[in-house]
Amino acid sequence: MELYSAELVRKQILAVLSVWGMAAEKAAITAGVMVETDLAGIDSHGISMLPSYQRLIDSNKLQIRADPVTVLESPATAVVDARDNLGHATMVYAMQLASSKARENGVGVVTVRRSHHFGAAGYYAKIAADAGLLGLVTSTTRTKAVVPTRGSRPLLGTNPLAFAAPSAGHPFVLDMSTSTVAVNKVKVYDYRGQDLPAGWVLDSLGNAVTDSRAAYTQLQGEEQGGLSPLGGTELLSSHKGYGLAVMVQILAGALAGAAFAPLKDTDDADDIGHFCLAIDPASFGDPESFTAAVSAILDTLRSESSASQDLPVLVAGDKERRMRDERLEAGIPLSSALVEQVRLVCSKSEAEFLLS
Amino acid sequence: MELYSAELVRKQILAVLSVWGMAAEKAAITAGVMVETDLAGIDSHGISMLPSYQRLIDSNKLQIRADPVTVLESPATAVVDARDNLGHATMVYAMQLASSKARENGVGVVTVRRSHHFGAAGYYAKIAADAGLLGLVTSTTRTKAVVPTRGSRPLLGTNPLAFAAPSAGHPFVLDMSTSTVAVNKVKVYDYRGQDLPAGWVLDSLGNAVTDSRAAYTQLQGEEQGGLSPLGGTELLSSHKGYGLAVMVQILAGALAGAAFAPLKDTDDADDIGHFCLAIDPASFGDPESFTAAVSAILDTLRSESSASQDLPVLVAGDKERRMRDERLEAGIPLSSALVEQVRLVCSKSEAEFLLS
Repeated sequence: MELYSAELVRKQILAVLSVWGMAAEKAAITAGVMVETDLAGIDSHGISMLPSYQRLIDSNKLQIRADPVTVLESPATAVVDARDNLGHATMVYAMQLASSKARENGVGVVTVRRSHHFGAAGYYAKIAADAGLLGLVTSTTRTKAVVPTRGSRPLLGTNPLAFAAPSAGHPFVLDMSTSTVAVNKVKVYDYRGQDLPAGWVLDSLGNAVTDSRAAYTQLQGEEQGGLSPLGGTELLSSHKGYGLAVMVQILAGALAGAAFAPLKDTDDADDIGHFCLAIDPASFGDPESFTAAVSAILDTLRSESSASQDLPVLVAGDKERRMRDERLEAGIPLSSALVEQVRLVCSKSEAEFLLS
Repeated sequence: MELYSAELVRKQILAVLSVWGMAAEKAAITAGVMVETDLAGIDSHGISMLPSYQRLIDSNKLQIRADPVTVLESPATAVVDARDNLGHATMVYAMQLASSKARENGVGVVTVRRSHHFGAAGYYAKIAADAGLLGLVTSTTRTKAVVPTRGSRPLLGTNPLAFAAPSAGHPFVLDMSTSTVAVNKVKVYDYRGQDLPAGWVLDSLGNAVTDSRAAYTQLQGEEQGGLSPLGGTELLSSHKGYGLAVMVQILAGALAGAAFAPLKDTDDADDIGHFCLAIDPASFGDPESFTAAVSAILDTLRSESSASQDLPVLVAGDKERRMRDERLEAGIPLSSALVEQVRLVCSKSEAEFLLS
């Protein structure tokens, strides 16, 4: 793994997006979100997505020049149509809109339809927290990866849910898929030739698949078995993760007017949906008492003695924040395979290749 | 187990609440919610709670005659103080208030502080769904039961989360604790002398406790180890269940202005907090398209072929609804031990004993 400065990675992403034809302001926002995702250690959702975005453009599913449009609006709500462009810039706009609605009405809800991949959900929830608000974000996903409890095929996406809250110190930022693990984690185990823990991936009979190569191949097929919902097995309450995945599908899919992957024509654009909720603590009491109460919860948890001395008790967001500090200092590690993929994207689109 | 008609169970609960001094309308609502909880098969949260409520009254922590008061209100938000009474009637009011706010503003949020046990969270989320709205409910809990990922002691409650959505057919009703299982499930295994699945309960070193007696005793102590957050172990992503538990604590505790159990004086009233969110799909498009989209998701899942022929793929709420139909017909099973406990409550409070 070579290390690349965040600034160089950002410039490389920006160069590609610009050459593809994304408008300047949107490209700047999108590159900013993507590099923050890499800085946070969520490597599967940052610069590594460029080849996938290129394929979506090539198949005419992603409209990189499109401008989002607000199709329905009331003082506390809005519906935004991303018009088949990438989700990042539209979601920054949507969460800022939800936040300003929350500041005026105590609460704001904005949904987004006809969108695409948007990186990591936590980034958008944190926009609300950074403004002193509570933020909740959910999103549908493109691929069918997760098998319902007792099911035999993948029907649900990894349907992420993110929640952020301000505190007197660092914010709380929960960003989780509603599956036990994400597809990428299986890929990493396959890459290392390591067996999977039982409960990550299930076959069509509901049995654990522990051979990481077999598991990854099976996931690529989207036909049999799939990732388990959070909980892993029915005995360990996977019906809860399954229920959360459906909740996300209802909020970011049905409510937003976006697609449900099993019922969508695969030739159509992805029509991914997002959901943003912002709540202003000032409508529920003294906002400083609120941040103090959140801080008291987080401090209590962080100062708890660990069951294992090497591994401190963390709260959601701590790991990503530490990773960000580390990578800002040392650089972002990119594998030579990924750098080569980016080089191909640049060469194909005639963008300047900066990672040499 | 003897079977008792729902009507008789309701009358028994009502008789006790009335003798305790709860106002007539509130007592009728509370008894109605409690018997619905028993009908749904959530036996730990219905009539079986009467002895626990009696103890709270005896220790002057529960003010059974108190009237809730709305302490802060705006068009889309409100804060209700339950004034240390039981949570049921206040939460019916709070969710109805959130629903009427959602109908006017597209979204409504109502929080409740200084409350007590309220039964099953799903009941309140379903109030919104029955009115054609989306409902989200969370609540803090009284006891410290759940150990944070990597932690050695229980610091969090089982912090339930419920979400309901209307469809053209039966609604979707997710009602889950954010722990792998509830304390009561461990109690049932102990009662049967059955070993626990590894991952339900952890000791202070983070290891699985599978002896159900030892596990139940440990949970009663609230000192060492505890229930695992949803996910079970760190390898199976228990940090997600842990994160959800903290999210619930922030919404229903910090935002509502209610207590965080580890920082509360145990002599004080429980100061449980609740959070209600209602969203009107009509603010996001045609409400009939919305219910059709939800129905399409639920129908797709329900008609999915099962990995095991005996166990059909369900969606959240199906199990409880079937149980309700069954128990309305056959009656609610109550153990002789529970009936005896209710008899003692009646005898102590001089309420009529109807389960003879």
